[in-house]
Amino acid sequence: MDRYRNIIILDTTLRDGEQVPGAKLNVRQKLEFAQQLKRLRVDIIEAGFPASSQGDFESVQQIARSVGDRVGITALARAVKADIDAVYESIREAQHPLIHIVLGASNVHVEKKFNRSQDAVLQMGVDAVKYTKTLLPDVQYSTEDASRADFEYLWKTIEAVVKAGATMINVPDTVGYAEPEEFGHLIRRIHERLKNLDDRVVLSVHCHNDLGLATANTLSAIKNGAEKIECTINGLGERAGNASLEETVMALKVREALYGCRTNIDTKELTCTSRLLTHLTGLDVQVNKAITGDNAFAHSSGIHQDGLLKDKQVYEIMSPEEVGAESMELILTARSGRHAVKHAVEKLGFDVSDAVGFERLFQRFLILADAKKEVYDHDLYYLLSEQQVQSESSHSLFELVSFQVITNEVCPTATVVLKINGQERKGSAIGDGPIDALYSVIITLTGIDAKLTSYKINSISHGKEAIGRVNIQLEAGGRSYTGRAMDTDIIKASGQAFLGGINAMILAGVIDENIINIM
Amino acid sequence: MDRYRNIIILDTTLRDGEQVPGAKLNVRQKLEFAQQLKRLRVDIIEAGFPASSQGDFESVQQIARSVGDRVGITALARAVKADIDAVYESIREAQHPLIHIVLGASNVHVEKKFNRSQDAVLQMGVDAVKYTKTLLPDVQYSTEDASRADFEYLWKTIEAVVKAGATMINVPDTVGYAEPEEFGHLIRRIHERLKNLDDRVVLSVHCHNDLGLATANTLSAIKNGAEKIECTINGLGERAGNASLEETVMALKVREALYGCRTNIDTKELTCTSRLLTHLTGLDVQVNKAITGDNAFAHSSGIHQDGLLKDKQVYEIMSPEEVGAESMELILTARSGRHAVKHAVEKLGFDVSDAVGFERLFQRFLILADAKKEVYDHDLYYLLSEQQVQSESSHSLFELVSFQVITNEVCPTATVVLKINGQERKGSAIGDGPIDALYSVIITLTGIDAKLTSYKINSISHGKEAIGRVNIQLEAGGRSYTGRAMDTDIIKASGQAFLGGINAMILAGVIDENIINIM
Repeated sequence: MDRYRNIIILDTTLRDGEQVPGAKLNVRQKLEFAQQLKRLRVDIIEAGFPASSQGDFESVQQIARSVGDRVGITALARAVKADIDAVYESIREAQHPLIHIVLGASNVHVEKKFNRSQDAVLQMGVDAVKYTKTLLPDVQYSTEDASRADFEYLWKTIEAVVKAGATMINVPDTVGYAEPEEFGHLIRRIHERLKNLDDRVVLSVHCHNDLGLATANTLSAIKNGAEKIECTINGLGERAGNASLEETVMALKVREALYGCRTNIDTKELTCTSRLLTHLTGLDVQVNKAITGDNAFAHSSGIHQDGLLKDKQVYEIMSPEEVGAESMELILTARSGRHAVKHAVEKLGFDVSDAVGFERLFQRFLILADAKKEVYDHDLYYLLSEQQVQSESSHSLFELVSFQVITNEVCPTATVVLKINGQERKGSAIGDGPIDALYSVIITLTGIDAKLTSYKINSISHGKEAIGRVNIQLEAGGRSYTGRAMDTDIIKASGQAFLGGINAMILAGVIDENIINIM
Repeated sequence: MDRYRNIIILDTTLRDGEQVPGAKLNVRQKLEFAQQLKRLRVDIIEAGFPASSQGDFESVQQIARSVGDRVGITALARAVKADIDAVYESIREAQHPLIHIVLGASNVHVEKKFNRSQDAVLQMGVDAVKYTKTLLPDVQYSTEDASRADFEYLWKTIEAVVKAGATMINVPDTVGYAEPEEFGHLIRRIHERLKNLDDRVVLSVHCHNDLGLATANTLSAIKNGAEKIECTINGLGERAGNASLEETVMALKVREALYGCRTNIDTKELTCTSRLLTHLTGLDVQVNKAITGDNAFAHSSGIHQDGLLKDKQVYEIMSPEEVGAESMELILTARSGRHAVKHAVEKLGFDVSDAVGFERLFQRFLILADAKKEVYDHDLYYLLSEQQVQSESSHSLFELVSFQVITNEVCPTATVVLKINGQERKGSAIGDGPIDALYSVIITLTGIDAKLTSYKINSISHGKEAIGRVNIQLEAGGRSYTGRAMDTDIIKASGQAFLGGINAMILAGVIDENIINIM
């Protein structure tokens, strides 16, 4: 018998992570990220909350259809029929579908949120599980705010929903209130009773990071009997986020002898999964983020550097190679060839199985490599994003033909030439600054009525270049649209990102084609 | 008797935090930050590592002189006479000076780093403590890499240095390897023996975050007898950083009944201390950083918002007000008046006790407020930084008189007018992009030979504006100089930051005045 227990990893980046301000992804981006989660070898992907919007429903459905047989798919439902139906419809084509029901278990949730009796709330949960079992065999039940619940009521709920057919019990520390030792005791008590009740039922935890303890609470739960954990890449999630997948998995690996547990995660994929999420959401991890921060493996003090030169063990408990952080980036040139480019694109987490699509990408790569000499990861991200937008669209999209921005303290001015449907449009505008001027002229030329609600720029250093990465958000008709672009010229990146947002509105069908074609 | 134990908080942001890549601060910035730590009511400030450079020595000395009688001052020394002398000289004018000695205690440190016998290393530590006691009464001894040390050797070391006169024993998890339960056991064993040996000796811990467990390990140590903890703002420190002060302190506060401990920290100062550090270093915290991230108190999902409207307790374990995150920002206008401006400046963590200096600031505020209508925190940071550079300098500094940057895909061009010693210099240059062109012309006009090693831009959204914050690093003669600026025009901010770096070289005296004056 294996001396190691296997811990099931559920990644909820696309549900708990994606619902945070500024992290909204479109269907294509979610599919891309789900494919990377599969390469990372997570066991279950929580793909969304289908009842929350039609867009979320469709994303979950497409992920469920595309992700194959090596990974389970779940999505969230409140304990009501409409939510459960939405989850069922969205995931039923997956090879391993799991319905996830969440319902409050603490007094403050039962009384303040539902204003019902404990028994009535418990009955809602039991009814929801019974109904779900008529649709699918695998049901996870989450006892929301469990860490603040009355233990006997919590257990009564768990017992009842297990008898009703729940196959997985998830114990969330919803508000990030738990302390590791205490949370470990809670999980141990539940584990002991649960194994007596039905030892096939899987015990799971879901921890939040409000006090910086999500990783520690998750690990403590594992020591005390949890068999499955819920976590997210970069710890992204509500408020201070969730237990970080990369921290939890690497703690289990580095301290394997202590925990006696293993996971199926391919840890070499951790860095590129983290980077892909940053690229897709525009939300950076801080330099000192454990495992995936830029400085996570940087030894800066003279004392440390001296020690490291003598023996790596002196200051290193894991190697950058183990998490895929070393030699993360290949610098490509026009001579790199198809094989190297394919490898680099795959390493970024993109699918290259479509031969026609890859050949088109490679031809565009050659043009770029001729112009730039050295092609970095961020250039590939750019090529890939552009290609996907173009290839999937049957709509006419705006293209930036040329631009000029003059900025000074008197009167910043932008001149832009755009193309749509083969026709050029030119114009200029002034503004409070260069970006303001640029966006004014683009708004005039496109004739689009949208409000810029967020503009974010970050720089990434690569070799000799400093690249600007711009993320913008537009709001129109109560919905929000994002645009992203990267370039060595921060003004150009700003323009491309803004056009990207406008094109996203066109792709969503919210812009009247007449508006695009007149003017 | 008070039922709560008081935990001593040592902040090492200026030592362990400041040594990370990109976080280097100048003397003035360190003084500013030390003043804010005092307002935060930390018990001890570790101000630097004086033997590492003359600049570090001077910073520690100035902090020691200025910080007053409510806070202890310490600085780091290796177990050698020269280091200890440097610490003594730099901190002896503080009202509560403490010398901090660090020496490896694990086998890997003893054998691989020192290549000596255990007894020889132990004797080095004892000799160091004995020598230190001839200088000052208060000595902290850190048993580096204690979490990987052989326990009996570790204890033998502690026993010997306590007998030699150490008044504080610090147990570091230097490589972030510890696990909370195990680390708690280690601290309990040391605590029990230490109290038998000499119950006046203070037991301390210092945890690193490589596996995301620094906060949890620190808290576990407190539960098991630690009386003092070392931590940093934003968790800044070597690699993945240190235990975060804000997380540890708020965990103790939110779970006061469980821990039975209190600190002297004024938690309402946490947010502005974190923001000040971000402003000074240019290193952002991620949006989902616990306590101080932009999203730490943001509830985004419909389920959570609905619950919160019913009762805050449903999803909130602490209020934003408790950490000073609510109504953090006052928007000022030309009518705000001296009192409001003074209050806002103080809230940012700056000293306004110099009446003449404040009046000069206020007059500049009025000019800005007339031009901009609304004045935000970032504007105040800008006014304050500019004023301090000007007021402290007897050197001639460069000033940006006017500029124009034209960017397009053909040939980005920058034209700049600078002033120094009352004389104007004008010129233009082309570049690969707008920033490259701008920096080329500034280099030509200033005649300075420095290499741009880092360019970082971030945007901050405030009201209707998006502000670019630019941080640059220059390298010349083996030393590095930083420049920072903020503006609604990202091109202007880039130019100002670059000039700031050049002015820092002038202030450091590395630029020959002749070079400045000829041309």
